[in-house]
Amino acid sequence: MTEHRITFQPSGRALNVPAGITILEAALRAGIPVEAPCGGGGTCGKCRVRVASGAAPVAPGACKLPEAELAAGWRLACATVINGPLTVEIPATPRAQSTQILTTDAGLSATFAPCVETRDVMLPPPTLADDRADTARLAEALGGPFEIAPGLLPGLPARLRAANWRVRAVLDGGRLLDALPLDAAPPVLGVAFDLGTTTVVGTLFNLQTGEPLAVASSLNGQISHGDDVVSRIRHAREHAGGAQQLRDAAVKTLNELLHSLTAQADAPATAVCHVTLAGNTAMQQLFLGLDSRALGEVPFAPVFDKALERSALHAGLAANPCARLHVFPQVGGFVGGDTVACMLAAGFDALAAPALLIDIGTNGEIALFNGREIFCASTAAGPAFEGARISRGMRAASGAIDQVALRGGDIACHILGNAAAAGLCGTALIDAAAELLRAGVLEDTGRLLEPDEAAHLPDALRGRVVMENNAPAFRLEGSVLLTQQDVRELQLATAAIRAGFETLLKIAGLEADALRDVFLAGAFGNLIRPANARRIGLLPQVPLDRIRFIGNASSLGAKTALLNHAARGRAECLRAAARHVELGSLPDFQDAFVNAMLFPEEKTA
Amino acid sequence: MTEHRITFQPSGRALNVPAGITILEAALRAGIPVEAPCGGGGTCGKCRVRVASGAAPVAPGACKLPEAELAAGWRLACATVINGPLTVEIPATPRAQSTQILTTDAGLSATFAPCVETRDVMLPPPTLADDRADTARLAEALGGPFEIAPGLLPGLPARLRAANWRVRAVLDGGRLLDALPLDAAPPVLGVAFDLGTTTVVGTLFNLQTGEPLAVASSLNGQISHGDDVVSRIRHAREHAGGAQQLRDAAVKTLNELLHSLTAQADAPATAVCHVTLAGNTAMQQLFLGLDSRALGEVPFAPVFDKALERSALHAGLAANPCARLHVFPQVGGFVGGDTVACMLAAGFDALAAPALLIDIGTNGEIALFNGREIFCASTAAGPAFEGARISRGMRAASGAIDQVALRGGDIACHILGNAAAAGLCGTALIDAAAELLRAGVLEDTGRLLEPDEAAHLPDALRGRVVMENNAPAFRLEGSVLLTQQDVRELQLATAAIRAGFETLLKIAGLEADALRDVFLAGAFGNLIRPANARRIGLLPQVPLDRIRFIGNASSLGAKTALLNHAARGRAECLRAAARHVELGSLPDFQDAFVNAMLFPEEKTA
Repeated sequence: MTEHRITFQPSGRALNVPAGITILEAALRAGIPVEAPCGGGGTCGKCRVRVASGAAPVAPGACKLPEAELAAGWRLACATVINGPLTVEIPATPRAQSTQILTTDAGLSATFAPCVETRDVMLPPPTLADDRADTARLAEALGGPFEIAPGLLPGLPARLRAANWRVRAVLDGGRLLDALPLDAAPPVLGVAFDLGTTTVVGTLFNLQTGEPLAVASSLNGQISHGDDVVSRIRHAREHAGGAQQLRDAAVKTLNELLHSLTAQADAPATAVCHVTLAGNTAMQQLFLGLDSRALGEVPFAPVFDKALERSALHAGLAANPCARLHVFPQVGGFVGGDTVACMLAAGFDALAAPALLIDIGTNGEIALFNGREIFCASTAAGPAFEGARISRGMRAASGAIDQVALRGGDIACHILGNAAAAGLCGTALIDAAAELLRAGVLEDTGRLLEPDEAAHLPDALRGRVVMENNAPAFRLEGSVLLTQQDVRELQLATAAIRAGFETLLKIAGLEADALRDVFLAGAFGNLIRPANARRIGLLPQVPLDRIRFIGNASSLGAKTALLNHAARGRAECLRAAARHVELGSLPDFQDAFVNAMLFPEEKTA
Repeated sequence: MTEHRITFQPSGRALNVPAGITILEAALRAGIPVEAPCGGGGTCGKCRVRVASGAAPVAPGACKLPEAELAAGWRLACATVINGPLTVEIPATPRAQSTQILTTDAGLSATFAPCVETRDVMLPPPTLADDRADTARLAEALGGPFEIAPGLLPGLPARLRAANWRVRAVLDGGRLLDALPLDAAPPVLGVAFDLGTTTVVGTLFNLQTGEPLAVASSLNGQISHGDDVVSRIRHAREHAGGAQQLRDAAVKTLNELLHSLTAQADAPATAVCHVTLAGNTAMQQLFLGLDSRALGEVPFAPVFDKALERSALHAGLAANPCARLHVFPQVGGFVGGDTVACMLAAGFDALAAPALLIDIGTNGEIALFNGREIFCASTAAGPAFEGARISRGMRAASGAIDQVALRGGDIACHILGNAAAAGLCGTALIDAAAELLRAGVLEDTGRLLEPDEAAHLPDALRGRVVMENNAPAFRLEGSVLLTQQDVRELQLATAAIRAGFETLLKIAGLEADALRDVFLAGAFGNLIRPANARRIGLLPQVPLDRIRFIGNASSLGAKTALLNHAARGRAECLRAAARHVELGSLPDFQDAFVNAMLFPEEKTA
């Protein structure tokens, strides 16, 4: 078998790969995440890389990049077959660089009462008159029987003696998971993970004080295998070893975050004595290595429902080898631990009046409390709000238009950073659609005016109405256009969420106006303009003062469970109270989806 | 580094080893057990092997084998350094062949009520109207919440679907450990292990019926690192990686027995859903990989006391990956799970009157109930009763003299198998000493008569009194002699046990006559002649009708815990009630030991 040497820049990572595989697959083998939202299908054009040296001829019809880019060495990694040694540059995308976003959220309201606690004890050393077992000595000092973590026992005698019998016992419930030397004890830490389809966020806490020590986020390494849960599950079902690849990628991502978090706090990885994790059904199950093929076909039954307690070590996490991993309970279908965590963070178990929770991510999750019951559904919003599938879409990074407003008969754009406009992010997409609806540039069907229909518009606006590739478009700033296709993507994403909550409202027998609270959670919840989101139908038509931004609520729920042991019981009650509604099977949802493709009428409030 | 090719016969196993290591170490690397009771010290002469081809020069003073044997290629494996390619024959010793002995014991008296039970359930398949999680479906069918073994969950969805939702649930308490296809379910099995210092015995049971399916025993693979607990602990303390070698050897021995047992029952290894194990402190801790250095120095504190529940998989056992391993509780010092198992088998928790338990093995364990409390001690009997350290000693195999009796003024020997006398086993050693005491050939000091002192003996006996190597000896049969040194070894072994129970009797304030039951457990308990054992002082001076043979009681206790879940609570109570007495620290024991070196006066009963 012929092999070729491939070197990736800027990391410098090099490896030999068999001839005939794609650059995308080579990058996977090198452990380098490359965005491939379409799962390597050659259709999304997002996996652009530059071949800096070596021959990479373009197969006829395989690549849609412009001639100038091809000449400069740009290729689609998924569509370029390796037939010789190459040096390949992986561009630093705004997405891959975004390590600071998505980590803000509302404050914690739960009392600090973690599962993991410490007890400082001084044990009597063994003597001829007292030759009890080491564990008996500990049981006496701790004031009662306790279980001992299997991984701790082998080295326990040496630890007790090295510590001169003065130890800090680390207990997780009634289970001893570490025995630290009292005179030189490292801190006792915990990490809460929000394992998103696109982004993973970890927060490190000191479990003795409750103090947050570090936050880190990164792309989910599974992204090379598709950008939504459906393509990930398909990868697991259809590729030999696919499920293992996805598991490995998730584990690697989490371990990189663990490393980054503990490095920030200048602590050893073994100081992490407890981990909580919330994600949707597919993310949780793929990470745990559970057979998730049933999520790829009707009726989408998950493997488990109640929360799982696992050994962090056996789950593959580089924490304290005796640390426990708490994985959130799952409601049904794709409504998983993240939704339960969001409901926990929103206090759904303490509500007195009807409320709606919308978690906008690559998957949109919706929970509706009608005063008696909770209805939950998941709907495939896609990654449009995160900038994918939008022609000039990007994350909220430098150069991104993040706000668009009608002002004095024209459009004004706000650009992040001190930079020229390079694209637009999700919040600007919503702003632009809402303002263009108000200005009459966008019809409620989603059709953009063409230049020859714009005669009645103010001059400034009219000058922005252009044609691109025989379709109408609207120039926001510089070369950044909002295209007709972008509006269609927005309509699909918005309609999926709107049809979801409208169907749940119907099942629950509620009008939107009955909702006393609408909780908006997720990636850009804090940044969205609610009036604009409501204008395009992403939020129900309720007065603005009922809309609450709760930020990354999934992460907040995971933190709550880390810092307050009673939160697990609350989460379990929420799961048990929630009824999963499989939207795809309901004719009402299909009707609602068709209706939701029309932007709604504006109400005043 | 120079390497040489070593081939071992009769197995044919071959490997390359660095020049300069000994044949014993090469055998270890090849995984071939070679007896080395002295731990490779070149003093016991038991690790004889034959070099069939290749040069293995004898270093001056390194070897005590006779010239004729050296000329025939015999060497001590521990004292022969490899400096060229060799073919080495490992003799098939009676010891290594003895796979049928030690597996008999008294019947089980506990009710059949194992921890592991099965429930046949038929689950409703998921539908759009019922898309609950797989675990929720199981919980409903099983009639309540249950824990699921972490190792089972990943493949559970595929198993349920492959079984068409008709499954045999295997539950260990409230924990689901397997889900078998109802229409083609393998049996559900369990194994009870007695992990002895010298011999390991495993018994396989059908856990659905309680039926015993197979018994197997083998040498403990650790034996190459020394033949008693002290030399094993020393190996773990003094050799880099020594503890790991001992652990690996024990795991390998247990897995070979598991393989043999399931092969006998024609069942897959995964059918073994539960394992119980009893051994002394050192054996249990070394097998579990627990730091046991503290057992090598006063005050000999064990690592744990209460029983341990472990994952069989993580302990290294090739059983069902979700099977649980139960390790017996430990009393203190070297008094471990085997003694608790013996007490359980003897029904020490139901005694009404004082009783003594003596478990004769390489380590002698003694438990005394005085009507209120239990006193336990361990005493280093050594392997003399198992034929080691006895000049013509061997196991109870073909060619072994197993009975010796005075008859018509002469000695009559019974030989096992249809063979010439090749040696004598433990029971014959006791018989011979007792009868020679009665005949006046042996003095109570342990001195054998010399030929010139034997004039008063009957002719037949007198003819057997000989000299060997300037010391008196007694010819039993053919070339099999009982030497003065053999009697000294017997005196030491017997004195250790006798001083042990006499010291405990003193501490408990009892005379031997107060004992209503004397339980004799261990390797040759069923075969020993009690009157002879009592004659030499191995048993207290009580009427013979109070002596009960309970055979391999440690194994019986392990089986009881496998087949009756309540037995664990009983074992735990026995452990908690038992007080460990460290004999070595007591002046009374030293005195008793010196006195016990004299054979006792005979009583009539």
